[in-house]
Amino acid sequence: MQQYFVNSKAPQDGLVTITDKDTAKHMFSVMRLAEGDEVVLVFDDAIKRLAKVINRDDQTFQIVADLPDNVELPVYVTIAVGFPKGDKLEFLAQKATELGASQFMAFPADWSVVKWDSKKLAKKQEKLEKIALGAAEQSKRNRVPNWQLFDQKAAFLKQVTDFDHVLVAYEEAAKEGEQSHLAASISQFQAGDKVLFVFGPEGGLSPNEIDQLTSAGAITVGLGPRILRAETAPLYALSAVSFAMELNQKGN
Amino acid sequence: MQQYFVNSKAPQDGLVTITDKDTAKHMFSVMRLAEGDEVVLVFDDAIKRLAKVINRDDQTFQIVADLPDNVELPVYVTIAVGFPKGDKLEFLAQKATELGASQFMAFPADWSVVKWDSKKLAKKQEKLEKIALGAAEQSKRNRVPNWQLFDQKAAFLKQVTDFDHVLVAYEEAAKEGEQSHLAASISQFQAGDKVLFVFGPEGGLSPNEIDQLTSAGAITVGLGPRILRAETAPLYALSAVSFAMELNQKGN
Repeated sequence: MQQYFVNSKAPQDGLVTITDKDTAKHMFSVMRLAEGDEVVLVFDDAIKRLAKVINRDDQTFQIVADLPDNVELPVYVTIAVGFPKGDKLEFLAQKATELGASQFMAFPADWSVVKWDSKKLAKKQEKLEKIALGAAEQSKRNRVPNWQLFDQKAAFLKQVTDFDHVLVAYEEAAKEGEQSHLAASISQFQAGDKVLFVFGPEGGLSPNEIDQLTSAGAITVGLGPRILRAETAPLYALSAVSFAMELNQKGN
Repeated sequence: MQQYFVNSKAPQDGLVTITDKDTAKHMFSVMRLAEGDEVVLVFDDAIKRLAKVINRDDQTFQIVADLPDNVELPVYVTIAVGFPKGDKLEFLAQKATELGASQFMAFPADWSVVKWDSKKLAKKQEKLEKIALGAAEQSKRNRVPNWQLFDQKAAFLKQVTDFDHVLVAYEEAAKEGEQSHLAASISQFQAGDKVLFVFGPEGGLSPNEIDQLTSAGAITVGLGPRILRAETAPLYALSAVSFAMELNQKGN
């Protein structure tokens, strides 16, 4: 069933009028919803609710039932990346949303090639949020991840202390028969923890950036022996968190 | 250091002349290798070898040393997908190669929208192999995954019995505190096993296809509670295999 996010509180009287133009257009022009048709609406409280069209002209729904399903990862994962080239942030906005990211950050890293001014960043943020919204609807998420684009790296680094776990993707020498840093870290995650993964741009993070992050409490984690592109590494990290916490419960 | 695959046996006398035009062009025109410069060459035996340019005009290298690193997954993972729309196979050729796939198959599934004739398939296969080659070089793989595009589903289904484990991505009701089918399957994998993951096109596999596959010994596995796109699901599966077998050895 089609799912839409409604950027407001759930109404106490169960009546909802869709005011967002894009959402209303998709509902009534693209999907051609008629009176009596049902969709899933998700409000700020992340609860999915079954809702029925009661008036097509007014774009009004009546909430019919709360739905129990919650597909969010047990931990809040923020994906932070040094500004990469091209449309890699757009790629991440879609794929990492499907894989359960709860927040995105991007910042000008030492080895970022692109330079984006604040006007460009504002435009980019709007585009990224739209992509994340679409991906969250398609993958039936309970929450839409938000984006924060920093024009100064220092402002990003200030955020690091807000997290329970900070993991920096970095090559790590694997030792035979030993748990990797990533596996050891994930095994320490508790439901509800705030986790930050930091990734470099194409050239990686600079040694100075690694120092700054590890001084702030981050640990470096390897993501297997193959060299992953900047935009592929976050997908590995999210899949690993999901596999370890959602599928392999007996193993942990 | 730059890595290139050489589609031949390693020479007994340690002398290699590059005959593939694209490879030679990249080496000597793009990278402007000079005599004495070193690269990594990988032959059919999947061993990486350090090699030095000895004659730029003849495009000849001298092998200097065998390198010990092997970054292949401990199991051979084949990713099979129902023909998807657009350029999703191209996307997979790049990303799933980075993540360690050893082979790709694609076939016309019941719910595939696209119809590709054998001429189109031959062209597509060539393109996909080129992308996989580039991704294998970039991610420093020891092997280049190959592609098999089937114009008949029956021909694909005949391959299924060649594998030690066949896993079909399909929604699975998760039960509290229990290992998922995916985690349970991976915990049975032995080094060197041949594993096949089968994914549907955008609309998924049909119930009939699921029956055919499970009758042939496949088991259905869920990939977490979120709905993943056709091209994202294989990345999750490969990441999970890597995480479980390469990083979480103590946990298994």
